[in-house]
Amino acid sequence: MRLSRHFLPVLKESPSDAQIVSHKLMLRAGLVRQTAAGIYAWLPLGQRVLQKIAQIVREEQDRAGAIELLMPTLQSADLWRESGRYDAYGPEMLRITDRHDREMLYGPTNEEMITAIFRDSARSYRDLPRTLYHIQWKFRDEVRPRFGVMRGREFLMKDAYSFDIDEAGARHSYNRMFVAYLNTFARMGLRAIPMQADTGPIGGDLSHEFIVLAPTGESEVFYHSNWEKPAELSSVDFDDVAGLQSIVSTYTADYAATDEKRDEAAEAAAGDALRQSRGVEVGHIFYFGEKYSKPMNLRVQGPDGAEVIPHMGSYGIGVSRLMGAIIEASHDDNGIIWPDAVAPYKVGIINMRVDDEACTAAADDLYAKLQAAGVETLYDDRDERGGAKFATMDLIGIPWQIVIGPKGLAKGVVELKRRATGEKEELSIEDALAKVSA
Amino acid sequence: MRLSRHFLPVLKESPSDAQIVSHKLMLRAGLVRQTAAGIYAWLPLGQRVLQKIAQIVREEQDRAGAIELLMPTLQSADLWRESGRYDAYGPEMLRITDRHDREMLYGPTNEEMITAIFRDSARSYRDLPRTLYHIQWKFRDEVRPRFGVMRGREFLMKDAYSFDIDEAGARHSYNRMFVAYLNTFARMGLRAIPMQADTGPIGGDLSHEFIVLAPTGESEVFYHSNWEKPAELSSVDFDDVAGLQSIVSTYTADYAATDEKRDEAAEAAAGDALRQSRGVEVGHIFYFGEKYSKPMNLRVQGPDGAEVIPHMGSYGIGVSRLMGAIIEASHDDNGIIWPDAVAPYKVGIINMRVDDEACTAAADDLYAKLQAAGVETLYDDRDERGGAKFATMDLIGIPWQIVIGPKGLAKGVVELKRRATGEKEELSIEDALAKVSA
Repeated sequence: MRLSRHFLPVLKESPSDAQIVSHKLMLRAGLVRQTAAGIYAWLPLGQRVLQKIAQIVREEQDRAGAIELLMPTLQSADLWRESGRYDAYGPEMLRITDRHDREMLYGPTNEEMITAIFRDSARSYRDLPRTLYHIQWKFRDEVRPRFGVMRGREFLMKDAYSFDIDEAGARHSYNRMFVAYLNTFARMGLRAIPMQADTGPIGGDLSHEFIVLAPTGESEVFYHSNWEKPAELSSVDFDDVAGLQSIVSTYTADYAATDEKRDEAAEAAAGDALRQSRGVEVGHIFYFGEKYSKPMNLRVQGPDGAEVIPHMGSYGIGVSRLMGAIIEASHDDNGIIWPDAVAPYKVGIINMRVDDEACTAAADDLYAKLQAAGVETLYDDRDERGGAKFATMDLIGIPWQIVIGPKGLAKGVVELKRRATGEKEELSIEDALAKVSA
Repeated sequence: MRLSRHFLPVLKESPSDAQIVSHKLMLRAGLVRQTAAGIYAWLPLGQRVLQKIAQIVREEQDRAGAIELLMPTLQSADLWRESGRYDAYGPEMLRITDRHDREMLYGPTNEEMITAIFRDSARSYRDLPRTLYHIQWKFRDEVRPRFGVMRGREFLMKDAYSFDIDEAGARHSYNRMFVAYLNTFARMGLRAIPMQADTGPIGGDLSHEFIVLAPTGESEVFYHSNWEKPAELSSVDFDDVAGLQSIVSTYTADYAATDEKRDEAAEAAAGDALRQSRGVEVGHIFYFGEKYSKPMNLRVQGPDGAEVIPHMGSYGIGVSRLMGAIIEASHDDNGIIWPDAVAPYKVGIINMRVDDEACTAAADDLYAKLQAAGVETLYDDRDERGGAKFATMDLIGIPWQIVIGPKGLAKGVVELKRRATGEKEELSIEDALAKVSA
């Protein structure tokens, strides 16, 4: 994409109302604009990153055997009366009345709807196990929205729901999501630590939060220093019950807890290895058995012909919130440092002198070659000073930057810069092309 | 995907409340389920088709130079007061009050919001022209939702908005979308006819509806028989002002009009070539000049330093509605006939005898090879009768179906069936694989 034709409104100054670094940088880099309290429009750069985050989430859900569908944003109040949550849910639920005076709501979560959908068609144990998920906008009417997309009101969430014949099956479905989550966050360059958690309004007896360490996080967290090793992808057969349990056991062996769940004995055992920080919740998984299936009358025929009430779990990832969490975890004074996997563009080309024929010809040619190679490229072809172009590329965090100027071209070289390390090298255009296309 | 692990609830009987064929088939084939009046959940098969339709729309918008962003579903009433539409818009607008008693609404369209976003950053003529679009859920509180997703309340729409320095520029932006629309619908196997249209609540003086012929369509339409030729893709440079105008002129030369816009002289001239049918609107484009930019105070500095009010247009495609339109245009007594470009899976494998080791080994192997080749495949590995499996594959409209049975295998062949034509041929597994992977 040529920047001269793009819509990328960056800000020179930090907006005064933004308190945390991710919120400041998302506004400055032109990722989002607030359109109402806690409601954001995703500008083109933000939209690209959001889609990349969602796509990684989707691929790891699919790999774990979950099936994608898409439920609507608005739900009928009657559905929530079946579970008893319509009256129980507080003022965070946005209640709506339509033109026929029917009571509706903007879904904050979908346990009731997915249970009703599954109930419509599941007949026997052969229809189990299933895990269904969707990636859809949710609304929670926060009393005080803040921190940008980290605590917004309209937000994009991946929520999955599992249906199993019994508790053992449900535990395996839970483990599938546990491992899928570790892989999802690792692919985004994040070390997310699973911590035992309270179940809150979802209910149930087994629950983990996945928390990314960040000094500005909303929760205080305590963990063993073993968690400081970088995240790794688990290559696993998701149908292997014992193998999956063993990964989960390994990952829950090292102490990690939020403030509400601290364990004095475990902390004493950790000794000098105990660490304290703040963190941002990016995922939350729950096993809650028959909490929704029972009152909503979801039943299937078991192998022996008797009726069985399926056991359920639910599994959320804050897709839009993740963008904030990634920025909190990966930035410097100059701006965002996108991990390659979620960067809006992999390569940025800076043409230092658009009025210089040789520079522009070389930059146009490189841009065409990168396009042809399928490398996502942002080409700064604007008539601006070099300094402003450097600042923009760093602010918006493009991982590889290729600078084309008249002095270098005279020597037959361009400058290739790696945003994450600041490392620069001079090399021929062909070598730069080969390096960033790899 | 193995059908034994999928979530694909097909219905044997046509639901009694569905009046038109697309609605019936969408329910029977397990594409959607109604969750409230005019509100649908997209089951896995429907979700896949919806994403494919949206992706074609996206690619053709990008090709025409439009830039994607993503605006939220909820908007503040104050924004709509700036244009005067908050009070003017009727009861189809879903009005919402949040916990702080702020007036909001579920966006039925986004002229106001995009104008406000553009106003925040556009400063000079150099920031023009731009066309911005998003693909997002909308809500229109229809008094009587019906025909399934064709006249639902919550629906997925692509809406684009163009900003130009003057009317001539705006006309070119309009032509870009006109041609992009022809290509978009042609890629889905649809002949969509552009017809001059009333501008309705969007306003403005130039407008075309794109209408797909279908006997169940909501509008009566009149057109020249020249429109009966199949749709073709226009290969065009979208920056070529004269070239684009020439395509638009060609496509508007043949008479086509909705009931409200009939032209007696043109119909007399068409003579025997005049055709009458019904149609479904799948897109609508508008040029409306300063209708929003002026009251909302969007101004940029022109080349001579004087302030200019940009000219705007807006361009909608009913993404979820298109699924109904495609089915209306492409089905038979046995079910849906998906055009290849939007089919949920390209290939279906029917294992006739899961209890036969040779059949299952051959089917498993073929499935693995298709997966490895990146061919989207639905594998019916359920323990069901062959007849039920044939019926399901036809109902859900999979374009290529490979039937593996014991008799054929003994001869070294499988049966390859083309859903659209019903053509069947016996060939080796290798040849079938090569044919469907092409």
